[in-house]
Amino acid sequence: MNIVLGDNRYGKAETRLLRVARLDDRHEIRDLSVSISLAGDFEASHIRGDNTNVLPTDTQKNTVFAFAKEAPVGEIEDFALRLAWHFVRTCEPVREARVEVEEYPWARVHVRGAPHPHSFVRTSAERRLTTVTCDGEAATAVSGLANLVVLRSAGSEFRGFARDRYTTLEETHDRILATAVSARWRFSGLDVQWVESFADARQALLEAFALQRSLSLQQTLFQMARAVLEARPEIAEVRLEMPNKHHFPVDLAPFGLTNDNEVFHATDRPYGLIEATVRRSPAVG
Amino acid sequence: MNIVLGDNRYGKAETRLLRVARLDDRHEIRDLSVSISLAGDFEASHIRGDNTNVLPTDTQKNTVFAFAKEAPVGEIEDFALRLAWHFVRTCEPVREARVEVEEYPWARVHVRGAPHPHSFVRTSAERRLTTVTCDGEAATAVSGLANLVVLRSAGSEFRGFARDRYTTLEETHDRILATAVSARWRFSGLDVQWVESFADARQALLEAFALQRSLSLQQTLFQMARAVLEARPEIAEVRLEMPNKHHFPVDLAPFGLTNDNEVFHATDRPYGLIEATVRRSPAVG
Amino acid sequence: MNIVLGDNRYGKAETRLLRVARLDDRHEIRDLSVSISLAGDFEASHIRGDNTNVLPTDTQKNTVFAFAKEAPVGEIEDFALRLAWHFVRTCEPVREARVEVEEYPWARVHVRGAPHPHSFVRTSAERRLTTVTCDGEAATAVSGLANLVVLRSAGSEFRGFARDRYTTLEETHDRILATAVSARWRFSGLDVQWVESFADARQALLEAFALQRSLSLQQTLFQMARAVLEARPEIAEVRLEMPNKHHFPVDLAPFGLTNDNEVFHATDRPYGLIEATVRRSPAVG
Amino acid sequence: MNIVLGDNRYGKAETRLLRVARLDDRHEIRDLSVSISLAGDFEASHIRGDNTNVLPTDTQKNTVFAFAKEAPVGEIEDFALRLAWHFVRTCEPVREARVEVEEYPWARVHVRGAPHPHSFVRTSAERRLTTVTCDGEAATAVSGLANLVVLRSAGSEFRGFARDRYTTLEETHDRILATAVSARWRFSGLDVQWVESFADARQALLEAFALQRSLSLQQTLFQMARAVLEARPEIAEVRLEMPNKHHFPVDLAPFGLTNDNEVFHATDRPYGLIEATVRRSPAVG
Repeated sequence: MNIVLGDNRYGKAETRLLRVARLDDRHEIRDLSVSISLAGDFEASHIRGDNTNVLPTDTQKNTVFAFAKEAPVGEIEDFALRLAWHFVRTCEPVREARVEVEEYPWARVHVRGAPHPHSFVRTSAERRLTTVTCDGEAATAVSGLANLVVLRSAGSEFRGFARDRYTTLEETHDRILATAVSARWRFSGLDVQWVESFADARQALLEAFALQRSLSLQQTLFQMARAVLEARPEIAEVRLEMPNKHHFPVDLAPFGLTNDNEVFHATDRPYGLIEATVRRSPAVG
Repeated sequence: MNIVLGDNRYGKAETRLLRVARLDDRHEIRDLSVSISLAGDFEASHIRGDNTNVLPTDTQKNTVFAFAKEAPVGEIEDFALRLAWHFVRTCEPVREARVEVEEYPWARVHVRGAPHPHSFVRTSAERRLTTVTCDGEAATAVSGLANLVVLRSAGSEFRGFARDRYTTLEETHDRILATAVSARWRFSGLDVQWVESFADARQALLEAFALQRSLSLQQTLFQMARAVLEARPEIAEVRLEMPNKHHFPVDLAPFGLTNDNEVFHATDRPYGLIEATVRRSPAVG
Repeated sequence: MNIVLGDNRYGKAETRLLRVARLDDRHEIRDLSVSISLAGDFEASHIRGDNTNVLPTDTQKNTVFAFAKEAPVGEIEDFALRLAWHFVRTCEPVREARVEVEEYPWARVHVRGAPHPHSFVRTSAERRLTTVTCDGEAATAVSGLANLVVLRSAGSEFRGFARDRYTTLEETHDRILATAVSARWRFSGLDVQWVESFADARQALLEAFALQRSLSLQQTLFQMARAVLEARPEIAEVRLEMPNKHHFPVDLAPFGLTNDNEVFHATDRPYGLIEATVRRSPAVG
Repeated sequence: MNIVLGDNRYGKAETRLLRVARLDDRHEIRDLSVSISLAGDFEASHIRGDNTNVLPTDTQKNTVFAFAKEAPVGEIEDFALRLAWHFVRTCEPVREARVEVEEYPWARVHVRGAPHPHSFVRTSAERRLTTVTCDGEAATAVSGLANLVVLRSAGSEFRGFARDRYTTLEETHDRILATAVSARWRFSGLDVQWVESFADARQALLEAFALQRSLSLQQTLFQMARAVLEARPEIAEVRLEMPNKHHFPVDLAPFGLTNDNEVFHATDRPYGLIEATVRRSPAVG
């Protein structure tokens, strides 16, 4: 019997970096979680325990901190690209570096209406994120967000669906639609205004969710993804994962009450899970 | 040997209610987690399994939903009070009802700058909360918030502390101060403008955190609690629990770099935990 | 307006210690989370930022590690007592030290039937724990466990309960009873065989849960607590918190099937929560 | 601009099923979380909100419960296969069904040494799992486990690694090696003794972790995966993901103590993450 090593990678996950920029009149902060994963010529470490090619994950952590000092962090895409290129360029056995960065959002505390120069408050459980992959020749970036929690209380139906002997669900013309959007969008290049691109993509997701009547969560997902592509030409493809966080109307009839879609029970599990990729079609001609 | 029942209580925890108010021009939503706990004459159920006095927790859940329909939910304090009085008044064995309500924050999605009438986005992982206790004669309310995450990057010291043979910490004139505030404030009465009171108390916490130089997290906690008491006369007492979420400056010297308090490693555990109650002193006279 | 400091305490929470005892023929490991909280004369730190009396939480962490080296850790009660006495004896402003220790369970990996000398596998998500409180004169210990998850599929009823207009629950002669026991027992003294006491108390909880027919979760709780008191004379009082983790029989009638209590849907929220203290009655006479 | 739908799938996630088999002399229980995901001809739902082809996720949930009644659940692989074949065979638009089942482990409570017929205790936070994929022609199964937490306190080194200007890690001849194994193994066919196969694969992981000296976590991972392949011929490929849960020796020198690898600080983040697939090499000839 011959047993061989297949795909493999390793790295340091979730290094938690806070970078303070001490400007003259105020501080700026960036609060990041950085995960690095390297693929390449690491067979000897697996087969023989020969670590000659293995740059310690501790070194990867150190690199995150040192890089945060040696040059401005910039946007998370900038920082991830800088780190990814570093590992493929300076560590010979590395054939591909993947760097994921998540950013925790902070806003300034407002004191008597004015933003404070060095006091901050966490604004959301939502996270902006990017994954950069670099193979030594080129790099690609996929950015997005996690945990964008949205709900609409009107304009959502679910009708005309398939039925079989296990189907008991009734059609609905008016349900709660609630989800926690996880979105990833792939850029066709790297010459991108990262901040503006993110803001527009996020706003496109929100507006498409809010504006268009929903006949299914699938349709809403598609409209949201399409809106991102329409808003930002540098984005080639969008992948969305959207759990259907069910809210069931409570039967109040036993108490002599009617429930005109006003009182709902929010449940945790099970939940629907809708996943799709939406992209520009290849040029034809 | 004689073995007896001591303090006991029971109830339904974390009923997740979404209430939609369908106004003419827009929807309003309230997203709540309601926990009920009843104390009283329940010894027979414990000792003999005689449930004559036990109102099922399932009924308590039903009551939450029915009450959300029978009258406007109002603020979380209103809703908790209505539920608490109900149980002590209508269920004879109940001698004390405690109702906790947590509210999840939502804001309207803005579409081309305008708030949408029925689409919402979760704004924070912070939660507004209240605990109402009613003994049949009177009710008291303790409100507050959980998970208000704040950080300041200047104006925080920790010096002049006690030392023993296990002390290695160096004094610092400039550290990161970060915490996730859990606050509870007790009202002296119930004739309170709940929304205004909450907004003012929360803003007082934020401003005190931001404005005043910190010589210790204890001092900052006291200033924050005092600011709440100064801002709202109806609040008699404030209890704060504040974990010290440590951010350590990274030693960059091995890489030929200096770290002028710019690059920090955020850690999860262990953490400091500072807890205190601050109150108005009794009248002297 | 006069505003004063009330109850307050501070300390280092969740210091994660692994202690390896390197014996001749094998290793022993203790995997602990240690939380320290001190109360005393700390007003100056709160009011003026004067930290003269404040032993840093960093020092408390160091003490945990140093104490783990200076003498055998022993059982978690031994270790907590040693730490608690240390702080009240050596740090003058401390009037009360509270030390909580949680232990994560490990067993040896078995290799071809034999226990391995230095390889271990985590056995459970259950945790043994203790809280020791020392005021300089005396110490008390409360030990227990968290997350002991148990389920019985027969011999559990819930009938004869109170009804009101919101009651829809049907009586049941045969339901699933499932809970995650959180138990704390207070010792009347400290001359205790900790290991044997814990093992007997835990087994008493399990046997009482298993053996006796349940007419309510309250009754089961009481029987479990009583069994602990009957098993171990050094235990003066037991406090149990037991969520009722609901399992609902699924209605299979729409599919032409009967459900004779065989198919259940396990839900997360809401859940019942039953809490009680059971103790020895004071001597009469 | 033309925008098109790419890969997409949907289904019901985390249906929590408890199945009780009421045998004459005892009960048996199976406690499962079942997640279903369907791919196929669902473009109309995405593009036009036409749900003709969409079998509701609610129906999928019902199917899980009904199937648990209509025939014995069997092993998780049996149950997943039965569900997966059902969806591709009876729902015409479905081209691929993927069914994931996780099982929560229970053991019987022992009362005076004897296993109880219907009382159970949760034994571990570890979970056995399987993912079955069925395209209408054939099915494949990938089974495994999550959260197998192991630690060895001797026989682990990390030396001879690559260094660059950011490397500060010292070589170690004796470190703690701790991880939470996530394992997935792909079967070459479906004629498998599932219980025996799982037990042997799990034991192979444990013994390889325990027995062989570790020169790197990569080497240990490879040895563990190889041991699974050697133990069970029906397994074609093993994928392991193993976080390196760091335990750092505490510097006790400031307290006049030496630390001969006895006192460690367990940290949460960052952590190393080692991932690899190990498989049988293709036949040559």
